[in-house]
Amino acid sequence: MAEAARHDKTARQLRLLSDALDSGRLGPVRRLVNTLSPAEIGNLLESLPHDKRMVVWGLVDPEDDGEVLVHVGDEVREGLIADMDPDELVAAVEDLDIDDLADLVEDLPDTVIDEILKSMDRDNRERLEQALSYEEDTAGRLMNPDVVTVRADTTVDVVLRFLRLRGELPEHTDHLYVVNRRHQLMGWVALQDLVTRDTGTPINQLIDDSLTALHVSESAQEVARQFSDHDWVSAPVVDDGNVLRGRITIDDVVDIIREQAEHQALGAAGLDEDEDLFSPIRRAVRGRVVWLGVNLLTAFMAAFVIGRFEATIEQIVALAVLMPIVAGIGGNAAVQVLTLMVRGLALGQVGPSNAGILLWKELRVALINGLLIGALVGAVALAWFHDWVLSLVIGAALVINFSCAALAGVLVPLLLRRMRIDPAVAGTVVVTAVTDVIGFFSFLGLATVILLR
Amino acid sequence: MAEAARHDKTARQLRLLSDALDSGRLGPVRRLVNTLSPAEIGNLLESLPHDKRMVVWGLVDPEDDGEVLVHVGDEVREGLIADMDPDELVAAVEDLDIDDLADLVEDLPDTVIDEILKSMDRDNRERLEQALSYEEDTAGRLMNPDVVTVRADTTVDVVLRFLRLRGELPEHTDHLYVVNRRHQLMGWVALQDLVTRDTGTPINQLIDDSLTALHVSESAQEVARQFSDHDWVSAPVVDDGNVLRGRITIDDVVDIIREQAEHQALGAAGLDEDEDLFSPIRRAVRGRVVWLGVNLLTAFMAAFVIGRFEATIEQIVALAVLMPIVAGIGGNAAVQVLTLMVRGLALGQVGPSNAGILLWKELRVALINGLLIGALVGAVALAWFHDWVLSLVIGAALVINFSCAALAGVLVPLLLRRMRIDPAVAGTVVVTAVTDVIGFFSFLGLATVILLR
Repeated sequence: MAEAARHDKTARQLRLLSDALDSGRLGPVRRLVNTLSPAEIGNLLESLPHDKRMVVWGLVDPEDDGEVLVHVGDEVREGLIADMDPDELVAAVEDLDIDDLADLVEDLPDTVIDEILKSMDRDNRERLEQALSYEEDTAGRLMNPDVVTVRADTTVDVVLRFLRLRGELPEHTDHLYVVNRRHQLMGWVALQDLVTRDTGTPINQLIDDSLTALHVSESAQEVARQFSDHDWVSAPVVDDGNVLRGRITIDDVVDIIREQAEHQALGAAGLDEDEDLFSPIRRAVRGRVVWLGVNLLTAFMAAFVIGRFEATIEQIVALAVLMPIVAGIGGNAAVQVLTLMVRGLALGQVGPSNAGILLWKELRVALINGLLIGALVGAVALAWFHDWVLSLVIGAALVINFSCAALAGVLVPLLLRRMRIDPAVAGTVVVTAVTDVIGFFSFLGLATVILLR
Repeated sequence: MAEAARHDKTARQLRLLSDALDSGRLGPVRRLVNTLSPAEIGNLLESLPHDKRMVVWGLVDPEDDGEVLVHVGDEVREGLIADMDPDELVAAVEDLDIDDLADLVEDLPDTVIDEILKSMDRDNRERLEQALSYEEDTAGRLMNPDVVTVRADTTVDVVLRFLRLRGELPEHTDHLYVVNRRHQLMGWVALQDLVTRDTGTPINQLIDDSLTALHVSESAQEVARQFSDHDWVSAPVVDDGNVLRGRITIDDVVDIIREQAEHQALGAAGLDEDEDLFSPIRRAVRGRVVWLGVNLLTAFMAAFVIGRFEATIEQIVALAVLMPIVAGIGGNAAVQVLTLMVRGLALGQVGPSNAGILLWKELRVALINGLLIGALVGAVALAWFHDWVLSLVIGAALVINFSCAALAGVLVPLLLRRMRIDPAVAGTVVVTAVTDVIGFFSFLGLATVILLR
């Protein structure tokens, strides 16, 4: 994909804003900020270092404060909330949709939560409590209880009159839900049908009951998958009794998909997808040093393996020169296989039924790549150290390490998953530990056996 | 996010299908497959090895063939197309929407393209040619020319009568576009307003002209960003003269967002996001060996640096044991910074206006992490080799390598970007080359100067 023109607009806004901030003229900054949507303001705040971020946050139209909070990562959000006094916070969030409010609640101070609950009418309070009773990252938490329902035994004309009386519809309403007296979902009617079909058409002729509704306990990932598999704009959510509880809209699903994909990219480097670009130093250190510590453990394992062969290295120093090649390239090969597997697992494309075939494929690929790279490295080693046995040893070690890389790349993510550890986060450390240890051991071990006979 | 329950449904379908395929009873397979949406069938095909994939592909309802082709990755698609004869292909794709057809065209044999063009009416042929005249990954290529337009000088009542005469609306129609005689875009009217406002309301009172339309040349990334910043379901696309050319819908944008995010995860391992899990061996080898070759080059650079210090290693073998730690952990630290930067660049959050501040932050984080990890490694080295000067040397080398890791992590992606090289793909190789070279050089260099005085 072309990298060049990407997000020119954001970059331009950022530059304009930065210049205006530096010049200290806050009037233009305020005007600029308040032409943006809440999501854009959120993005902008995330791209500013702490002090400028707080200046800009103070200039955001109070009406947008709540929506902006919904659109920033957890870490940035905490910082923004810490900067507001309780009254401001209550004013900012009390008009949010229930699903957004439920999403924010855990980041709010208890006093603010009490205030908000007090300021709500009973209906909304019950809805919020209902939403919070579902686990995070489930359809129940993501849904908005605000839905428009109609009965089956009526006509397009009657429904249209009802809608004109009702006035505005919730955002992204593309379907009306047909329910019975017990509020159980019977099906839905497309808004499109209401404007294209004859006004006398009975609603029950327009009901689409072929689609399955989402269940309150379904995971966010499953929700996202269903939306993209069926090209939905919104979908109804029901409970065990098929009672309509709310609806989920595509804008929230887009956020889930984004987070899910970022999770693979950032998780592989031991980062949290909510990490703030401008985290305070202390927090950034804490976030990263744990991961580095885990990697350090595996580095010591590798060092320990090398340590067992000190005597060999003392006699043939060339081994010390060449050994990082065997370990390093093996690691690269393993990470390639792992990355494909992690994506396959996330998409549900890899399971027990095809893991064997995948392993067999990857082993063959590894064997060929091992022979190619092994021959190349062997040739360079021969030219460098003029020792054809050493060349054979490094070539053989590479073939061995490539095979182990394929094994680890396929099996480690499956194993981690069975142990309920996220392979997107833990996979890289484990597979590179394997290729480091096997790489050093096979190369130095073969050298000891063959070269030091 | 919870990993456990993810995509249970897909995995279950896969197992059922796999069992049915193994038993050779194709009737149940056919029934199972044809209960799925085209996107689900695409996902399923991608998760099957080549021979089973072809069996299932033959069982897909011919009516769905075209949509399924749209929903699979490039590599899998080529395989499926190769399996169809020209007549089948023409039948499969001729009823696709223009934007989907434009997306497929380059993968089709020329004879099939000719056939399709011949079978189209002039209007559609012109639309397809129009679509193909825009570059790939631009709004012009993504849009569907099928739009519903109305005039401003009319009323809700008239529009509704027009819609009832017209019948079905294009999928995901949430707005009607208001154009003038020259088909220039004047604004849009929400379908919601048509069903909630009085039938006598003049359309020009309902026009929303506050939103900006997309331009045909805008990049897919920019389109995706605007959709998620504004929570759009569909958006109009105009040309230089503000003439309405088509509309883009959220389902296509979801695909872009998915691809874009996968690009970071897979690109970092030198993989193409279109790679087939079950690529033929030869193709998989070709795809991976180039990347491994590039990594091999950097491994040789590191080996060359070590080679300059053979004499030192000969005298102190402990250096050979410990040196991979310095290089390896430095690489991990650099990849963490790089990953944050690549995401920041993709979101437009990093630019010249804040790169300096980021660099300064990352340098401080690196210094602290370097001191922490350096002290830890120094202590272990002391316990292992009982040489406190060696401990100091490795500690100092780690601090140096962490600092260089931060420098490389921040500057390399910015530099690559300026050189129009995608940092998501090339970043890892370059930064680990830096930390390998600096790691070995600083450790062995310091050891030579201090330990071998």
